[in-house]
Amino acid sequence: MNHLINTRDFSLEEIEQLFERATEFLDEKPREILKNKTVITIFFENSTRTRSSFEIAAKRLGAMVVSLDVSRSSSSKGETLFDTAANLDAMGPDAIVVRHKSSGVPHILANYVNCPIVNGGDGSHAHPTQALLDLFTMKRHFGDIKGKKVAIVGDIKNSRVANSNIELLGRVGVEVILVGPPHFLPQTDLRVHHSIEEVIDEVDVIMSLRAQTERHANQIYASLKDYGTDFCITSKLMGERDIIILHPGPVHRNVDVDDFMMKDPRSKILEQVKNGVAVRMAVLEKLIEH
Amino acid sequence: MNHLINTRDFSLEEIEQLFERATEFLDEKPREILKNKTVITIFFENSTRTRSSFEIAAKRLGAMVVSLDVSRSSSSKGETLFDTAANLDAMGPDAIVVRHKSSGVPHILANYVNCPIVNGGDGSHAHPTQALLDLFTMKRHFGDIKGKKVAIVGDIKNSRVANSNIELLGRVGVEVILVGPPHFLPQTDLRVHHSIEEVIDEVDVIMSLRAQTERHANQIYASLKDYGTDFCITSKLMGERDIIILHPGPVHRNVDVDDFMMKDPRSKILEQVKNGVAVRMAVLEKLIEH
Amino acid sequence: MNHLINTRDFSLEEIEQLFERATEFLDEKPREILKNKTVITIFFENSTRTRSSFEIAAKRLGAMVVSLDVSRSSSSKGETLFDTAANLDAMGPDAIVVRHKSSGVPHILANYVNCPIVNGGDGSHAHPTQALLDLFTMKRHFGDIKGKKVAIVGDIKNSRVANSNIELLGRVGVEVILVGPPHFLPQTDLRVHHSIEEVIDEVDVIMSLRAQTERHANQIYASLKDYGTDFCITSKLMGERDIIILHPGPVHRNVDVDDFMMKDPRSKILEQVKNGVAVRMAVLEKLIEH
Repeated sequence: MNHLINTRDFSLEEIEQLFERATEFLDEKPREILKNKTVITIFFENSTRTRSSFEIAAKRLGAMVVSLDVSRSSSSKGETLFDTAANLDAMGPDAIVVRHKSSGVPHILANYVNCPIVNGGDGSHAHPTQALLDLFTMKRHFGDIKGKKVAIVGDIKNSRVANSNIELLGRVGVEVILVGPPHFLPQTDLRVHHSIEEVIDEVDVIMSLRAQTERHANQIYASLKDYGTDFCITSKLMGERDIIILHPGPVHRNVDVDDFMMKDPRSKILEQVKNGVAVRMAVLEKLIEH
Repeated sequence: MNHLINTRDFSLEEIEQLFERATEFLDEKPREILKNKTVITIFFENSTRTRSSFEIAAKRLGAMVVSLDVSRSSSSKGETLFDTAANLDAMGPDAIVVRHKSSGVPHILANYVNCPIVNGGDGSHAHPTQALLDLFTMKRHFGDIKGKKVAIVGDIKNSRVANSNIELLGRVGVEVILVGPPHFLPQTDLRVHHSIEEVIDEVDVIMSLRAQTERHANQIYASLKDYGTDFCITSKLMGERDIIILHPGPVHRNVDVDDFMMKDPRSKILEQVKNGVAVRMAVLEKLIEH
Repeated sequence: MNHLINTRDFSLEEIEQLFERATEFLDEKPREILKNKTVITIFFENSTRTRSSFEIAAKRLGAMVVSLDVSRSSSSKGETLFDTAANLDAMGPDAIVVRHKSSGVPHILANYVNCPIVNGGDGSHAHPTQALLDLFTMKRHFGDIKGKKVAIVGDIKNSRVANSNIELLGRVGVEVILVGPPHFLPQTDLRVHHSIEEVIDEVDVIMSLRAQTERHANQIYASLKDYGTDFCITSKLMGERDIIILHPGPVHRNVDVDDFMMKDPRSKILEQVKNGVAVRMAVLEKLIEH
């Protein structure tokens, strides 16, 4: 049984093959590859975006999808997470996509079920399909990405997106530079900077993260606006530089990225969304026996 | 790209053709017309009835449907409506059905997406599929409807259903008379009356609207019951008259329409619901390239 | 028109045939038996488990499913339950699965619709598909079940699961013994006991119910834990006895059933879940004309 708990679960060769399939899936045509399969999505944390991306991916492969919104459900009836998983598994799904606010949940669930688990984001641990679609988007733009430099900007310490990207980008030979206020940066061997200006002349990609200062009240920034003053990706900052901008969404406009850059062709944010469906199709195809 | 934002988006000839298709779809048989298509429904305002009507319509045409309930979702994460729309669009849907409490939202969204937008109701502006199904229901009953008279009764000023019906009925040669307490009536060139009795001997159709006095606290009526005393469609009021009753639902029984009239064959309220699925099938077929 | 409101709606011969089909459906393969059919699930009470079981069952038969979560919907807009049902029915579904917190609702709804109603649980009245899957699970284990003894343990008085099992098991020649604290037991002609130890040496099946002491505050038990001290199915209690354990879920671990028994092969709880999908497939196949 193969699962996708974090990016390390796939070798570089597997990822190469995955991207070849994802490229084909960009035609957005429905397939019958998973025609007789059932995919359950179970999101303990609300996410319109990621859930619907997985749902569309599974349906485009011909699978039937049962979407469980469990923010209000039997987990509140005192049932353990593991019994919930075992119960879903007993209904005979061919894969379960799970998101949970606690790190490690998908990993543990994998021991309770007889089908592949796809991690749709767990706590501050990992968000492997996001990192895969980010890499896919970079490769679509640059072709060869070895030796490129990516600045990840924002609240990196608490970010599963950053975590998964740091692992995966390091493995494919991309240098990752972390940029953010000291309190937002993890312990790391990577280069760290406290201002985008310091690195903007050397990077090829800026990956802006969603500012989540609501989680850090009274730490550094009194408000999102204050954070944006220092770390927003603005057209003034970007100038004419040949740098692409990525963001996992949802974007705080004029805090993470300003209005001008949102519509600039260098922003690949909507391409990431489009690529996300194709990459998730490739992931489901790979993990589900058919 | 064609959208359905309000009833004016379709010419009378187009509506005629639409109704021919809707008539065929009344057989409730599933089709494969939109077999490879994806329809996203995104309801920022809760509506079991309209959402499920669109969902059944799309599925009966063979489309896959992704339903997003966004009353609790990323719009609360500070993302703009337009980014939400652009993101959904990036996933490659073939149509987006949207409902929103603010007038004008579907119109603006149409500029942010590459697929048809179907307005499932926006603020007090328009509810075009409702007006189309109302007209379809009248035509099914009367055959030729030119010269008929329709009394719209209730809280007309704030009603998108009334707005869309006034536009569409005027265009097909039906006289519309507005009936309600002064505070519920808009500025208009149409005939207005403050009591149903004044018009009941001349009309062919009474379209009762949902009393929403909760929105008008302290204006005129202390309670729904008081409103019902004046404007409820009762069997006593109707007598033996040959008038059909329409209502967009959900009905406040004995406030909008009384129990006797709800089960009277002159009430076409359930027929409206049935017709609604068929009309929405015709709308989706018309707007989505296939 | 056949409905499934309670277990009495099916004769023993019909149930025998139903179980033959359910046995075939255990292969979890998708069918096209209900390919052109629409099933609406309408759950006025939240239930991830039962709703998704019905949804998977319907989809595995090829039906399209529209799931309405109406805990937050138009019932709160003052529409009567019956108008909601009549409206859904007007959209042309081939079956409606309904759960409601009030006993009798599915029975009454059956008068307002033109399609089969499947009771997904109503108040403390009945939960027929649960009793059918419980019986199916026992038959799969024992083969012939005539003369077997089942102890139902817990809050029986308020349990629709117990009600449906008592009816059905009595009819197939299984003796039912009720075990629980006095306040949890109904008026009955069945044998009652206040401790599991008194019956454990004679029973073949223990059906533990979900402790819902939250509904009985200040009656007997100050807490779930106190209830568990007396009525939890523990490995110490079970010893080496050849008894199978059933539970409708969700399980309060170490209150209803302890951790050891949850993973003991005598626990058939996950098998019940798996069987539930197959039995519900057989029920939908039986009730829906095709």
